[in-house]
Amino acid sequence: MARIGIIGSAGRMGKALIEAIAAAGEDLAGGIDKGGDPLALARSSDVLIDFSSPHALEANLDAAVAAGVPILVGTTGLEERHHFLCDDAAERIAVLQTGNTSLGVNMLAHLVREAASRLGEDWDIEIVETHHRMKVDAPSGTALLLGEAAAEGRMIALADHSERGRDGITGARERGTIGFASLRGGSVAGDHTVHFLADNERIALSHLAENRAIFARGAVRAAQWLIGRGAGRYRMPEVLGL
Amino acid sequence: MARIGIIGSAGRMGKALIEAIAAAGEDLAGGIDKGGDPLALARSSDVLIDFSSPHALEANLDAAVAAGVPILVGTTGLEERHHFLCDDAAERIAVLQTGNTSLGVNMLAHLVREAASRLGEDWDIEIVETHHRMKVDAPSGTALLLGEAAAEGRMIALADHSERGRDGITGARERGTIGFASLRGGSVAGDHTVHFLADNERIALSHLAENRAIFARGAVRAAQWLIGRGAGRYRMPEVLGL
Amino acid sequence: MARIGIIGSAGRMGKALIEAIAAAGEDLAGGIDKGGDPLALARSSDVLIDFSSPHALEANLDAAVAAGVPILVGTTGLEERHHFLCDDAAERIAVLQTGNTSLGVNMLAHLVREAASRLGEDWDIEIVETHHRMKVDAPSGTALLLGEAAAEGRMIALADHSERGRDGITGARERGTIGFASLRGGSVAGDHTVHFLADNERIALSHLAENRAIFARGAVRAAQWLIGRGAGRYRMPEVLGL
Amino acid sequence: MARIGIIGSAGRMGKALIEAIAAAGEDLAGGIDKGGDPLALARSSDVLIDFSSPHALEANLDAAVAAGVPILVGTTGLEERHHFLCDDAAERIAVLQTGNTSLGVNMLAHLVREAASRLGEDWDIEIVETHHRMKVDAPSGTALLLGEAAAEGRMIALADHSERGRDGITGARERGTIGFASLRGGSVAGDHTVHFLADNERIALSHLAENRAIFARGAVRAAQWLIGRGAGRYRMPEVLGL
Repeated sequence: MARIGIIGSAGRMGKALIEAIAAAGEDLAGGIDKGGDPLALARSSDVLIDFSSPHALEANLDAAVAAGVPILVGTTGLEERHHFLCDDAAERIAVLQTGNTSLGVNMLAHLVREAASRLGEDWDIEIVETHHRMKVDAPSGTALLLGEAAAEGRMIALADHSERGRDGITGARERGTIGFASLRGGSVAGDHTVHFLADNERIALSHLAENRAIFARGAVRAAQWLIGRGAGRYRMPEVLGL
Repeated sequence: MARIGIIGSAGRMGKALIEAIAAAGEDLAGGIDKGGDPLALARSSDVLIDFSSPHALEANLDAAVAAGVPILVGTTGLEERHHFLCDDAAERIAVLQTGNTSLGVNMLAHLVREAASRLGEDWDIEIVETHHRMKVDAPSGTALLLGEAAAEGRMIALADHSERGRDGITGARERGTIGFASLRGGSVAGDHTVHFLADNERIALSHLAENRAIFARGAVRAAQWLIGRGAGRYRMPEVLGL
Repeated sequence: MARIGIIGSAGRMGKALIEAIAAAGEDLAGGIDKGGDPLALARSSDVLIDFSSPHALEANLDAAVAAGVPILVGTTGLEERHHFLCDDAAERIAVLQTGNTSLGVNMLAHLVREAASRLGEDWDIEIVETHHRMKVDAPSGTALLLGEAAAEGRMIALADHSERGRDGITGARERGTIGFASLRGGSVAGDHTVHFLADNERIALSHLAENRAIFARGAVRAAQWLIGRGAGRYRMPEVLGL
Repeated sequence: MARIGIIGSAGRMGKALIEAIAAAGEDLAGGIDKGGDPLALARSSDVLIDFSSPHALEANLDAAVAAGVPILVGTTGLEERHHFLCDDAAERIAVLQTGNTSLGVNMLAHLVREAASRLGEDWDIEIVETHHRMKVDAPSGTALLLGEAAAEGRMIALADHSERGRDGITGARERGTIGFASLRGGSVAGDHTVHFLADNERIALSHLAENRAIFARGAVRAAQWLIGRGAGRYRMPEVLGL
């Protein structure tokens, strides 16, 4: 029975994780939030799951490295420097950073990559997501994950081709960009649609999460998979066998 | 047979208008674009249809007033001062300014007003629209028309409660706001959806235009209706009998 | 504290009702299933909620009449004779039969009635619903409720104008009919969309239930409302003040 | 300049084909309808395009074989025996029978096959399509094409696992089946969505045709590609290089 430690245990995802750990027959090593001690938690855990905040990421990675335990980073709203921190930690421990832990979303990302690699630039790509009213960042980590998949399929860098927060006099759409739009409201667990829009026809690929259980279950599955892995960065498709 | 003058005749809508005028058995008085003389056109027309640009609005209204002919303003991307210009002109001639001339969209606006008046603030309102890649402004005039309908239903001022261009660390959604998001791509003639999002349930009201013919047909119908009307501002629901 | 008795307590809705009764601070008088005694339950209840099966309806209504307690009938798959049974019982007790107890769906029905009353027969009406893989009847009670709202708006009888199970060589669509289609899969709590399809434009009005909690909450609210009402048939819009 | 003969030239697709042939710079060899002589047409054509009716298929294939010209069969509503007729003709000439000639739909079929091959039977598959009110058969040829793609991905035979015309007391959904539903109304050129529905999450893959131009353009492209091919049955993905 693996001991799993949760960072960010008081949030919506934290509660769902506690249920999923019990359902998977694993052991909850403990849970901390703002002000908690990640190192003490890491030392009593076989693996850490972090769904807290970007501000806490550095301390959490340091704790995992110091204790020598793998870590799953599901926190959203990461910037470039956070990804470098993950890379650094991954030289010493197993790190899996992902915008989404569900089978369905990772399957969708696979299909988006496939479509983007075969449809030319005359198919404009637009990604729209909807989440509950309490979500504080936009676009969602999952929308960015899907954008990365589209950019990979087209062999371009997402950072150079993304179009966000369209408002006002924008001018005509720039060819080859990938657009993002974010809706917020109600208790939506997560809707994502990737549109491919050409002259006279359109393809839309979408995922709808009915609740957070799928993310928590996927996170626990990934945490189990990480135990015993060597140092390095891993990705959800490896966990899911996609 | 009414003589209808088109301002903005070279654009996509201009071409659709020329076809719709012929189909309606009316007479095309002429069409001008950037650099054309609106006064000369107004003097040879019984009514003007303007689908050009906000920059040209003042001159177009002046021409209509000078010639004493009514005008339908379908131009999008208007700001507050443009609405004041319409008000001024409406003291002398009949002016109908609208974000959308189709029966379906005006029906949708009616339903949105009705829903917003009966659902409390625990139903978050989000409006999303998609248009072709050549469109230069966002949100669309139709999205704003739908936002106005929602605000009227709630008896609030849209200007004080709209949320546009959501991106980055936004914080939780502010209660009572109306969100807008704009997608651009392909040859989409116009999709609009108004979402009402509550805890555990959602309502979505949407309209899809398969092509521009419906807008052109509605604009011609409105132009015909305007001929002979006294000074004042009119609205599409009056034309459509909604 | 009202005593609420549940008929069909072991099903998915039954479990959600037990939680909703507790959440509303009311008293669970008891719950029965196939083989249980509805009369004993009725005698110890202030109101009954029936989400069981059409076969059990007659006995359940008889029990409610004999005990003199009001009853909410949420069972789906009813035929014409079941509605006559409700009418008969309603001469002695308060009866509320409904295809859906949520605020959102009843709001949607109101909008559908409104749209159908103002859009002519050149707008074809099609209703599509999706439910979880365990549902045994089609179309859903909610789809039929929405169909009734559309028929009322058009002042026609649904029974004479509905088109179900379209398959094979169907011929062109008959003008004025209301079509139904049913999808089944996964754990979908209930999606419903009413399409109005005209030449070149379309309106779609939809509702999505994220889980059964909204139905259970609405059913308990309706049950509370029924206590003390005189004999007669009541409808959800009255309960919800729509 | 290739000479292209159209069978079914008076229908909606026939008119779109005539425009597409001109746009592609090819030569319209002629067009026939009910009562026309397919052999005379075949003899004056380099390739035939058939969008007529299943009843005419045998005579059309015979004419193509007799004249030794390839044929594209886009007719929908075909039964098993019609497919055998295509097989027979394909021993003598090049035959391409397809439910849809657009790039987008064939891309979608590729993604559906991919998803179906990787998602287990706990993901229920449902296919829903919408077409204009004049369409006489259901499900659409494209819906069946997508169903075939899903069945191939799962390595099952569609004929043994399809579920059509769901209505009444259906019982719970049978595991492993592929469901079809058809909506009809307005002037819809063709919407198709393939749903994959699991516990707590859903994937939807869809295509929307704004008008028939994409089908006509794809048919002409396929006809051009067929000229000079040896006897055999061909498929759209080969034409499109998918």
